[in-house]
Amino acid sequence: MKWDEIGRKIIKDLEKDLLPYFGKKEKSYVVGISPSGDETENFDKISEDIALKHLKPLGVNIVSEELGVVDNNSEWTVVIDPIDGSFNFINGIPFSAFCFGVFKNNKPYYGLTYELSTGNIYEAYRGKGAYLNGKSIKVKDFDPNDISISYHPSKNLNLDKLLDKVKRVRTFGAFGLEMCYVAKGALDATFDLRPKVRAVDIASSYIICKEAGALVTDENGDELKFELNATDRIKIIVANSKEMLDMILDLL
Amino acid sequence: MKWDEIGRKIIKDLEKDLLPYFGKKEKSYVVGISPSGDETENFDKISEDIALKHLKPLGVNIVSEELGVVDNNSEWTVVIDPIDGSFNFINGIPFSAFCFGVFKNNKPYYGLTYELSTGNIYEAYRGKGAYLNGKSIKVKDFDPNDISISYHPSKNLNLDKLLDKVKRVRTFGAFGLEMCYVAKGALDATFDLRPKVRAVDIASSYIICKEAGALVTDENGDELKFELNATDRIKIIVANSKEMLDMILDLL
Repeated sequence: MKWDEIGRKIIKDLEKDLLPYFGKKEKSYVVGISPSGDETENFDKISEDIALKHLKPLGVNIVSEELGVVDNNSEWTVVIDPIDGSFNFINGIPFSAFCFGVFKNNKPYYGLTYELSTGNIYEAYRGKGAYLNGKSIKVKDFDPNDISISYHPSKNLNLDKLLDKVKRVRTFGAFGLEMCYVAKGALDATFDLRPKVRAVDIASSYIICKEAGALVTDENGDELKFELNATDRIKIIVANSKEMLDMILDLL
Repeated sequence: MKWDEIGRKIIKDLEKDLLPYFGKKEKSYVVGISPSGDETENFDKISEDIALKHLKPLGVNIVSEELGVVDNNSEWTVVIDPIDGSFNFINGIPFSAFCFGVFKNNKPYYGLTYELSTGNIYEAYRGKGAYLNGKSIKVKDFDPNDISISYHPSKNLNLDKLLDKVKRVRTFGAFGLEMCYVAKGALDATFDLRPKVRAVDIASSYIICKEAGALVTDENGDELKFELNATDRIKIIVANSKEMLDMILDLL
């Protein structure tokens, strides 16, 4: 299947039917609780419904933040986060994404992360490199004098040791998108150790990051493994180099 | 003078001559060192030159991040940050702003903060309320069960006490813009205590926040005072309520 074409069909509908709601907090409301226990807003549901409209006729397995798992006994599994960074989207903060990761027999195959505020499309087929709007991207070379990271604060995670060495720290609140910023070389690393992120948040950008040359590990620095479900909470570090990864592991 | 009209003329030129450089890291280079010691990039200079083209004929005093202070012995002083969030802008991270604050005899008169990625215009005339694209905005009512803040990590600032009480934490890296997110009720508070921000970063959004009902204080919770120059580094807390402010002061 031409997953990039399917992704673009979904994006076209998102532009028409989801983007007009950007920042329309007064029109948002809670419609339910997701399998992982988070509130689902109507905007998340709009986005998910658009994706499902395109995916259901394909008979593939689907894992989505709001819906949970639909097992159609297919070799294909599509993992979706309808809106990565819902709070940002609802509040008109231009940092959120639609995440679309495709797995064949549970192995990474294709990832597309679509930045809702800019229209930027990050994507990668396994083994074929990572791209931003069709242009090849890769992680930034590590330079100890010019380090920029994003992370999510959590209790008992003392960043002081890193603050001496790092030039810029960010917390954007849309982890799948922050991973793409490592992939394109804007950030040196991003990590979330609460643990809070789920497969749906990272599936698409995982493939993009790997193809861009990033290291994607767990809290021990070992290659990240994750199940394709909508409930497990994962600890994750994404870094452009072994040096950068070691600096983060040194905090723990 | 009709400062909102002058601001919009500048914005029109920024759209034409600055926005095409969004994310064009390969076209950015350092052109000098600003009065406060930061590197000035060519993109900052492009933005500043656009503003100066419109302001110089007016004979007003100008304070700008890159230029420093131009004293024309006018009753008007215009305080500019050509690009609040330069790093974000250069790296294609959609979170940066043009900041344009106007003071009459050193008193706040008009503020305009223009979000470069969305085209959103936050503005306020002293005493006339705050607006986002012409629609009235105000701070969010404080709800202890739904607190969202942004801040900048710094050594010896332990956030743990706050993490129990706060639902969402962000660090966007463009303080003037983060202030507007408090003004429009997306965030409950934002603070930077390194101290790193300067008058140019906060001047426009200061007026917007005050008009939206925010408290703007120093690290003691006292009303913020700042000089109109491009060098002083300020500690600042912006909060939607006394309760929120007290929670932050309690960290220090």
